[in-house]
Amino acid sequence: MSFGVHSEVGRLRKVLVHRPGLEHTRLTPSNVEELLFDDVLWVSRAKAEHDMFCEVMRERGIDVFLAESLLAEALEQPKVRDWVGERILNEREVGITAAQRANEWVQTAGAAEVADFLIGGITRTDVVKDVGLVWQSADPTHMLLPPLPNFLFQRDPSCWIYGGVTLNPMTKPARKPETLIMEAIYRFHPMFAAEEFPIWLGGTGEDWGRAHVEGGDVQPIGNGAVMIGMGERTSAQAVLWIARSLFRAGAANLVLAVHLPKSRSYMHLDTVITMCDRDLVTLFPQVVYGARTWAIRPGETPDDLVVEEQQGTLPDLMATALGVDRMRIVETGGDAFGAEREQWDDGNNVVALEPGVVVAYERNTGTNTALRKAGIEVITIEGFELGRGRGGSHCMTCPIERDPAF
Amino acid sequence: MSFGVHSEVGRLRKVLVHRPGLEHTRLTPSNVEELLFDDVLWVSRAKAEHDMFCEVMRERGIDVFLAESLLAEALEQPKVRDWVGERILNEREVGITAAQRANEWVQTAGAAEVADFLIGGITRTDVVKDVGLVWQSADPTHMLLPPLPNFLFQRDPSCWIYGGVTLNPMTKPARKPETLIMEAIYRFHPMFAAEEFPIWLGGTGEDWGRAHVEGGDVQPIGNGAVMIGMGERTSAQAVLWIARSLFRAGAANLVLAVHLPKSRSYMHLDTVITMCDRDLVTLFPQVVYGARTWAIRPGETPDDLVVEEQQGTLPDLMATALGVDRMRIVETGGDAFGAEREQWDDGNNVVALEPGVVVAYERNTGTNTALRKAGIEVITIEGFELGRGRGGSHCMTCPIERDPAF
Amino acid sequence: MSFGVHSEVGRLRKVLVHRPGLEHTRLTPSNVEELLFDDVLWVSRAKAEHDMFCEVMRERGIDVFLAESLLAEALEQPKVRDWVGERILNEREVGITAAQRANEWVQTAGAAEVADFLIGGITRTDVVKDVGLVWQSADPTHMLLPPLPNFLFQRDPSCWIYGGVTLNPMTKPARKPETLIMEAIYRFHPMFAAEEFPIWLGGTGEDWGRAHVEGGDVQPIGNGAVMIGMGERTSAQAVLWIARSLFRAGAANLVLAVHLPKSRSYMHLDTVITMCDRDLVTLFPQVVYGARTWAIRPGETPDDLVVEEQQGTLPDLMATALGVDRMRIVETGGDAFGAEREQWDDGNNVVALEPGVVVAYERNTGTNTALRKAGIEVITIEGFELGRGRGGSHCMTCPIERDPAF
Amino acid sequence: MSFGVHSEVGRLRKVLVHRPGLEHTRLTPSNVEELLFDDVLWVSRAKAEHDMFCEVMRERGIDVFLAESLLAEALEQPKVRDWVGERILNEREVGITAAQRANEWVQTAGAAEVADFLIGGITRTDVVKDVGLVWQSADPTHMLLPPLPNFLFQRDPSCWIYGGVTLNPMTKPARKPETLIMEAIYRFHPMFAAEEFPIWLGGTGEDWGRAHVEGGDVQPIGNGAVMIGMGERTSAQAVLWIARSLFRAGAANLVLAVHLPKSRSYMHLDTVITMCDRDLVTLFPQVVYGARTWAIRPGETPDDLVVEEQQGTLPDLMATALGVDRMRIVETGGDAFGAEREQWDDGNNVVALEPGVVVAYERNTGTNTALRKAGIEVITIEGFELGRGRGGSHCMTCPIERDPAF
Repeated sequence: MSFGVHSEVGRLRKVLVHRPGLEHTRLTPSNVEELLFDDVLWVSRAKAEHDMFCEVMRERGIDVFLAESLLAEALEQPKVRDWVGERILNEREVGITAAQRANEWVQTAGAAEVADFLIGGITRTDVVKDVGLVWQSADPTHMLLPPLPNFLFQRDPSCWIYGGVTLNPMTKPARKPETLIMEAIYRFHPMFAAEEFPIWLGGTGEDWGRAHVEGGDVQPIGNGAVMIGMGERTSAQAVLWIARSLFRAGAANLVLAVHLPKSRSYMHLDTVITMCDRDLVTLFPQVVYGARTWAIRPGETPDDLVVEEQQGTLPDLMATALGVDRMRIVETGGDAFGAEREQWDDGNNVVALEPGVVVAYERNTGTNTALRKAGIEVITIEGFELGRGRGGSHCMTCPIERDPAF
Repeated sequence: MSFGVHSEVGRLRKVLVHRPGLEHTRLTPSNVEELLFDDVLWVSRAKAEHDMFCEVMRERGIDVFLAESLLAEALEQPKVRDWVGERILNEREVGITAAQRANEWVQTAGAAEVADFLIGGITRTDVVKDVGLVWQSADPTHMLLPPLPNFLFQRDPSCWIYGGVTLNPMTKPARKPETLIMEAIYRFHPMFAAEEFPIWLGGTGEDWGRAHVEGGDVQPIGNGAVMIGMGERTSAQAVLWIARSLFRAGAANLVLAVHLPKSRSYMHLDTVITMCDRDLVTLFPQVVYGARTWAIRPGETPDDLVVEEQQGTLPDLMATALGVDRMRIVETGGDAFGAEREQWDDGNNVVALEPGVVVAYERNTGTNTALRKAGIEVITIEGFELGRGRGGSHCMTCPIERDPAF
Repeated sequence: MSFGVHSEVGRLRKVLVHRPGLEHTRLTPSNVEELLFDDVLWVSRAKAEHDMFCEVMRERGIDVFLAESLLAEALEQPKVRDWVGERILNEREVGITAAQRANEWVQTAGAAEVADFLIGGITRTDVVKDVGLVWQSADPTHMLLPPLPNFLFQRDPSCWIYGGVTLNPMTKPARKPETLIMEAIYRFHPMFAAEEFPIWLGGTGEDWGRAHVEGGDVQPIGNGAVMIGMGERTSAQAVLWIARSLFRAGAANLVLAVHLPKSRSYMHLDTVITMCDRDLVTLFPQVVYGARTWAIRPGETPDDLVVEEQQGTLPDLMATALGVDRMRIVETGGDAFGAEREQWDDGNNVVALEPGVVVAYERNTGTNTALRKAGIEVITIEGFELGRGRGGSHCMTCPIERDPAF
Repeated sequence: MSFGVHSEVGRLRKVLVHRPGLEHTRLTPSNVEELLFDDVLWVSRAKAEHDMFCEVMRERGIDVFLAESLLAEALEQPKVRDWVGERILNEREVGITAAQRANEWVQTAGAAEVADFLIGGITRTDVVKDVGLVWQSADPTHMLLPPLPNFLFQRDPSCWIYGGVTLNPMTKPARKPETLIMEAIYRFHPMFAAEEFPIWLGGTGEDWGRAHVEGGDVQPIGNGAVMIGMGERTSAQAVLWIARSLFRAGAANLVLAVHLPKSRSYMHLDTVITMCDRDLVTLFPQVVYGARTWAIRPGETPDDLVVEEQQGTLPDLMATALGVDRMRIVETGGDAFGAEREQWDDGNNVVALEPGVVVAYERNTGTNTALRKAGIEVITIEGFELGRGRGGSHCMTCPIERDPAF
């Protein structure tokens, strides 16, 4: 099979990203909070920074796929337009009149244009004809279809865990359409449609209740182990479901469930800890040490989950799970003030391209220097604008093919 | 048919309410906001106040049904326990281990006890056995199943509009189980199961997207007209859907859609305007005057909605719709400060028991006096504790049988 | 000397309170937060509840003085009108034109009326003539002079510690005029002007910098000891200053400085612990146990403060300071949820009228029952409205004469 | 006299700025809000950006003074150390023990070091010896003396209006020490001490009540007119006081008082409108049009202020005041979303170096292009980091000598 993510630091071969676009031009100081973004961006500059990031990966021989292109390619098929129209532009989502107009448009517009608006949202000026009450009663800058600025963080809406994928039911209603778009890509894009792979959790047609998960919380660290953060965005319900799916398929034998404080700063597990090498993590000590952790293992039958709270720090538990002597640790750099700033600016949120090689924002000079002193090759990218959305190289990438590290 | 609400002021014959209970004993200063409640209550006192409110209605010959009793009676049937268990206590809602335990409990516990915990929530001390990770990883006061303190406001989760009902898909995820409980009652309680009536909108098994509505926004004012607020809790998508359902069935011929500012103070239409007599409303002028309003009428076919923005104030539009000369108006009482306080304390949120007779909190002396001067009989009830949840007699009642007023 | 507070539980002889009034009729949902109040009140009912509270104290032989009456009596002297006008109604406070008009009014209006408006604030409708730009540019409900709703909590703006008093420089600018009013009373009212007593801290004519204190944090527990909370409202700077003043005068020999978390729920020390008898406290365990505490004692000279962090719980430290074997403890009543609610509703905020006799809100049934079981006489008062401002009987009273307890 | 600001667009000759420094290294995600800053900065980069900004001005022949250097030079005089120590490091500000230690340090440390810490704040790691309770009871990252990150915005703490200056009493207590530092510079630095100039408002030794003003609200537009915003940070009380001081001295004959909505986005008048040429302003239309404006003029005596609300837009009123035919207007660039973003990113906040030449952040491409099309020379500077504090070139500069423009 061409897809599968077998570690956090093995050679990265294929990755999904999303270039900043229309959706970020919709952001304003008055709507950022509602749209779950942190600040407005200078969009053309953000695009340039993202292009440089992609270039860094391509130069290392990695296949970089743009999610928006895959969506556009999938939408070339009429049935995919129907599928998307029924789920995103139906009467319950956009209103009776608007749904009719929107579906007429989906049938006639170019595939790339449809893809662009599905991600970027539809505003008053985009729509030539009146689309009824939903529209008339809206504020001037109201959006018929809200934009998806967090789609930039491709890590979240879906994630590959070993040979299968999750279609993540997200906590915040504003992000739900992101997952739907990923489902459309995985179901219909020829590259994926040609393959068979299991879905560990998620997907349309079912109500996932409080089983919420975002990919930033999920790390398939290798050796049959998966580390999942439980906090503001990922619930224990989802962790259990994923564990059972993996165990039933024999795809994994250990899930480490890590409890995170509910805080904007530590929204996902990968904001406080990521792997840089087979035996090296960078982490934010205040949150990682002291985080309660449970091991979930299959019992007599794979359906029979055995849950046990663990002693020891998370790096120790990782070392045991991976079979290495001990994990080397690089804490967030700088003094007490500086470390808090670098954590906030995604100093610990780095993606490995291969063992010992990571991509990081240049601004986190303290953490980057510490990583280099520990022997890690740190490729820096600019993050003046990208970083304003609170997400680093780990958040912005969805690996779809990565080698084992062991 | 025994059910149906044909006006806002015709004789009230049957009404659903919910007595404060277990769910309010779960409220604390630190969780009220998350649970969408305004303040903590002295629960035993709140019960007494609610009892007095029910007594006032019973003395007028009204059949007062307690939603919790109807739920308990429905749960006597094993199939209802299954139905509820599958929807509220399943693996995605409460986690794999917990779901198993919870369903064992649902099968063996008394029906009243099950009803009590479905509304009141399930906490650590309620569960004797360990229920797995969801539980272990939770904070001490965390709830396996969250309580539903807003179930006190029976107006919201479902509403009767003429001869049918809506099962309201609510905006806030925390309130969704309230609607599910109402659906269980309407589907399975013998009183309702014996009858045939249409569902205008809502119900399990479908994703209602952004078609959100809460009953506090819906007023079937009579003469084939319905007034629906669109604001923080009710979307234009839902208004259109309800209008089409009504028009298709010939149950109504006009929906007045009223745009409300998104504000805690004016959460629902009935917080700023309610009817007290065939030609008299009490209203909060700052919000009601100036509210943009659209008329929705059936076009050539009932599916063909005609939407037109209206000129004139809401009371004028109501008068035209009802065929009365003009609506008399009683504004919130007191000086500028006092009126704002009385609006906040539900001075305009009164329920009519028959034309010209309403129930109101005693504390809103300014508004009550003005109503009396206008010839309305105002029956006062205490609201020291009830009022802390931000809801008056209109919010706390779900009329299920009310006569036409004309 | 007729004044002095020599303990927290000795016989209370004279006390200052303030009856709810004009200032509470200014409260609205939209200004409560800015005015540092928690909710709006039904004012006439709040007055009745407060009257009952005063009656309870008078029946025990306590002289209850109304701060507003003392202010009015002081204002009978022209020089006091000048003093107040210069400090509260000057050009920098209310603007050039307004100051001129306001001072004309102060000179001609009745003393009671002036007192009423100084506490209740001055609004547009109160002023007949135009008062210039400050006025014209204001919102309709804007106040030329803001009301002082927290003046209800007489405990805060000044406090008697043994034979002297503090004129408390408060943290929040909105409360500063309260202290000024107390200073006018203590300086000019005949009852106080006839006596000589030291001012430990505070007073006009000096900038008190970050030396902030509110009386809710100060408890002269007796035996030369004072317990002072340091949190949102009281700074270490003020604690040190008070300690030095007391030591210099030989008025005390120990200050226990208790660190409180910065939280609305635990704003003052007396929201989490108050004394009910010589050897009994009621307290909220989550905050009190674990609070870091320092002892401040005079060194070789009274100016030389010796500060040492203490081991042991606060009740243990109190017992040592008071020379009793051990403090008996009554924790906030109810289950985990109920205790949090009763703390919030001022269950631990009780004032002793004499050893073993306290006044408490009736609503905190759990805590009151526990106190009674411990032998305390609990006199209950209604607090439906009074309690909405977050303050109990301790907060609402400023003892000015209280006997030693030992 | 060497100082004086006689217009907003005449040739700028001397200007005060502050280079980002120690105070910005104290910022963390958890303290930015309390310290009234918008986001954390990459400090070394912010310094580089600021250096480029200063270079741009120097290349135009402008004398750029660093406030921190002037402070350090003033502190070379022992009496200035005493003056500052008495006001900033006294017992009421930092506590009894700490004040003693701090003043010992002030007497012995180098002047530049003292200046650095007065602006940058003093933390635990900066202090070798224990400084008593204030210190011990503080959180680990607590600051004995809080840093002044907003000192970067030199426009605010003082402002020159024609031939005199204001020492601005600021609304937020956290910013008060900034003004004190400016007062020390103006009083004691040889460059200023050698001159005589009036203080229109402000200064130590007096309580300025509610007469608050920040320089971002003040624009001496020329021809004897001053435009002052009244909003979150500047009160009508201060506007009147400044007007009277100017009129008494014959330094101006018109103050235009502009009412601003209280909002973070429009904190100061210069966030929505600045002048670029004698007859050209750039402005944010949503706020500027519709802003109520009053003209204040001297009456029969200069003390007799005549206040009249004006008709017409602010640019029209400016044109009349300046005696130009009409003001040309460049609105914030971009579509509805983009304009809101550029206003937020200080697109309208530009400083003129001479008529028709302004400095702007490069990121606001829409507004800059529009300005250029109108014939303005726009010198762009980077603002990736500088801009995170919400302030542009106008906010960062305090002109101390600028020619008339007419």
